[in-house]
Amino acid sequence: MTPFKLTDELIVNIRQLIADKKNAALRLMMKEFHYADIAEIAEELKVDEATYLIKLLDSEKTSDILAEMDEDSREAVLNNLSVKEIAGELEELDTDDAADIVGELPKEIVQEVISEIEDKEHAADIVDLLRYDDNSAGGLMAKELVKVNENWNVLTCVKEMRAQAENVTRVHSIYVVDNDDKLKGRLSLKDLLTTSTKTHIKDVYIPKVDSVTVSEKSEEVAKIMSKYDLEAIPVVDEIGRLVGRITIDDIVDVIKEEADKDYQLAAGISQDVEADDSIWELTRARLPWLILGLFGGLGAAAIMGGFEEMIAKHAILFFFTPLIAAMAGNVGVQSSAIIVQGLANDDLKGSISDRLIKEMLLALLNGFILAVLLMIFTWIWQGDFATAVAISVSLIAVIMVAGFIGTFTPLFLNRRGIDPAIATGPFITTSNDIFGILIYFWIAKLILGI
Amino acid sequence: MTPFKLTDELIVNIRQLIADKKNAALRLMMKEFHYADIAEIAEELKVDEATYLIKLLDSEKTSDILAEMDEDSREAVLNNLSVKEIAGELEELDTDDAADIVGELPKEIVQEVISEIEDKEHAADIVDLLRYDDNSAGGLMAKELVKVNENWNVLTCVKEMRAQAENVTRVHSIYVVDNDDKLKGRLSLKDLLTTSTKTHIKDVYIPKVDSVTVSEKSEEVAKIMSKYDLEAIPVVDEIGRLVGRITIDDIVDVIKEEADKDYQLAAGISQDVEADDSIWELTRARLPWLILGLFGGLGAAAIMGGFEEMIAKHAILFFFTPLIAAMAGNVGVQSSAIIVQGLANDDLKGSISDRLIKEMLLALLNGFILAVLLMIFTWIWQGDFATAVAISVSLIAVIMVAGFIGTFTPLFLNRRGIDPAIATGPFITTSNDIFGILIYFWIAKLILGI
Repeated sequence: MTPFKLTDELIVNIRQLIADKKNAALRLMMKEFHYADIAEIAEELKVDEATYLIKLLDSEKTSDILAEMDEDSREAVLNNLSVKEIAGELEELDTDDAADIVGELPKEIVQEVISEIEDKEHAADIVDLLRYDDNSAGGLMAKELVKVNENWNVLTCVKEMRAQAENVTRVHSIYVVDNDDKLKGRLSLKDLLTTSTKTHIKDVYIPKVDSVTVSEKSEEVAKIMSKYDLEAIPVVDEIGRLVGRITIDDIVDVIKEEADKDYQLAAGISQDVEADDSIWELTRARLPWLILGLFGGLGAAAIMGGFEEMIAKHAILFFFTPLIAAMAGNVGVQSSAIIVQGLANDDLKGSISDRLIKEMLLALLNGFILAVLLMIFTWIWQGDFATAVAISVSLIAVIMVAGFIGTFTPLFLNRRGIDPAIATGPFITTSNDIFGILIYFWIAKLILGI
Repeated sequence: MTPFKLTDELIVNIRQLIADKKNAALRLMMKEFHYADIAEIAEELKVDEATYLIKLLDSEKTSDILAEMDEDSREAVLNNLSVKEIAGELEELDTDDAADIVGELPKEIVQEVISEIEDKEHAADIVDLLRYDDNSAGGLMAKELVKVNENWNVLTCVKEMRAQAENVTRVHSIYVVDNDDKLKGRLSLKDLLTTSTKTHIKDVYIPKVDSVTVSEKSEEVAKIMSKYDLEAIPVVDEIGRLVGRITIDDIVDVIKEEADKDYQLAAGISQDVEADDSIWELTRARLPWLILGLFGGLGAAAIMGGFEEMIAKHAILFFFTPLIAAMAGNVGVQSSAIIVQGLANDDLKGSISDRLIKEMLLALLNGFILAVLLMIFTWIWQGDFATAVAISVSLIAVIMVAGFIGTFTPLFLNRRGIDPAIATGPFITTSNDIFGILIYFWIAKLILGI
């Protein structure tokens, strides 16, 4: 398989076909492409062109294309479709994808769209999913699943399953419920392949099955599914009734989004943006952190102003402020990043104080090595031993404080139920800049006795 | 399901049971836990205790526990096992996990371990997998899969599949090959459930199947599988013969590792380390970046030394160097992070020059807003209009240069085939510190006419 590659020629080609209304040629071309590839193409086209393409193809394919497109492009295309057309697309989608799309529709047309869906059960399932929070198991799950009653025999079971399987894109597990629809266990497909058809479900099902409740956080579901290597997990309501199923492809998206979010926060980007978003959106995501940095810088300037007398005697001290600030920032980001990652991956053991002691030892070791290097350089360069000592000793102190703040802040935020990832990046560098510079001048003043 | 929670009491409890050699109680307790949970427990125990536990339990379970443990802990336990015991564990594992473990064994015992594996075909499969690079499709794939010949009928097919399915933990797809073992297509399990047993495979199989070649990079495999929502993908050799299969759980690990690596690089941590690693390992991962920062700081100090004459007249300029350096660093990290993420997610379209123009416009907009803020503050604070203008104009220039470097560097590295994530974090902040300070003093000198 040669992977699909979106080229400029391809886009130009498709645009021309659309402009010339060469429908047969377009249909033939699109038949060869996977819906995920057509979604990429549609994102590159102008809204009218994308709409033309969507209206041209069968809704069986276009529904998947729409589900795969990014939110902005999808919204633009849906704006050009009639209520009936939108309902037609939803008809073809699994309930989870359909509910996601309905959730993005303008409120005033939601009811109308839902009422145009011909399969009333499907419509009811979508409505049912709308009430769950996006970031919960309920928000991730689909209603499509294969379930059998524990009181059936394998024969009934296979017959029922065939009917159910028609609506389910991928059969992972066959869930077993009792007469009250409560989840009792599962039948694996492998068991089905290797079990005689005369057996009773009660006697063969596996009574142990991992499940999550509808209100479980997406992040937690992702952790459970990836830890236990699950490809699907059933979702139960508060009293244990089977209400849906989450599949691993949705979890892959959750893991990616989570990682992207943490990465962006560490880089000082506060909203979910992409390189292709508008300058205005990018500014809104970036500017707040820069303003934070600006105030931090003004704070640092004010602190330095307080030590103005020192300039006259030891101007050289000022040359090293960027170095001190940079080291404080780097150490802070390193320590906070490792804590944030440990928290995200759930592999942080031991108490906060153990963690802080370890970081202090680490900072002392790193600080000492760096201070020796710095002292040798400064001494050779400036020939002033006292100043070299003052700067180097300050560096150790600054690194230790930076390490402390970097370790403590995310742990503290996490205890308080706040996302610790906020503590990385500009937040840590800015506060460490200020603390670093303050400590630096204090210690220098002490050692040099000014 | 209440999720498993590793508590200190539990560990103390287990330690006591091990010390008292209460084997029956231990076995009973472990029976209740999932192997992934026992792996977590084993990581918390001392090596001898973990070994005791592993030796106590059935190798059917312990093999999975070992596969799930982190590399360091596993290595320590394997050191305490005999060659025969290790072979016994490998016997129970899927070939991909077994090959990963063999790859970590000391070279001198590998051959001996392999020769102790009783299932010769399994041993041969493991040896076969050893020759692939860890970061390639070959390194990820397992040999266990279900395949049928296109010339069989469904009856033969089901019979053969039952035998094959015994060795396969999860059946995703049934792959169809020709007489030369070349991959022709697939049969879905759903088709199997809904197709009459008399049909011929040739007439029902889906001739389209996504596949990757053994040499494809892991990252690329992850992109393909997550884009096309695949739960398993067949792997073919250079001439199209079916040689293995990659499942989504391995891809989830690849995605997480990739995200962790990018995150750590952005934070200035150059090796794969965890918060629980030793101080020495953490130092090796962090110190190189700090030394880079140190030299950057020395460079900045040298630059400032060159402008020493200015101090006498405009000491205030020096107060703003940390601000300028911090802003340059923040903007640089923001721009590079968004490019690195765009490259990783494959959603960066358009040419490098378009990208740079956009970033310049963005930097100009952000820079202007920040400069106005800075000018007002500085003017009010210092009452010196010329200086306020000089600092503010410099800030715009510095932000634009920082944005340029932050955007250009990862794009350039990527073109050269180097991991662009290296460009984030300390690398960008350090170089931007230096450029920023240089530009700042130049422009200030120009405007203030010193």
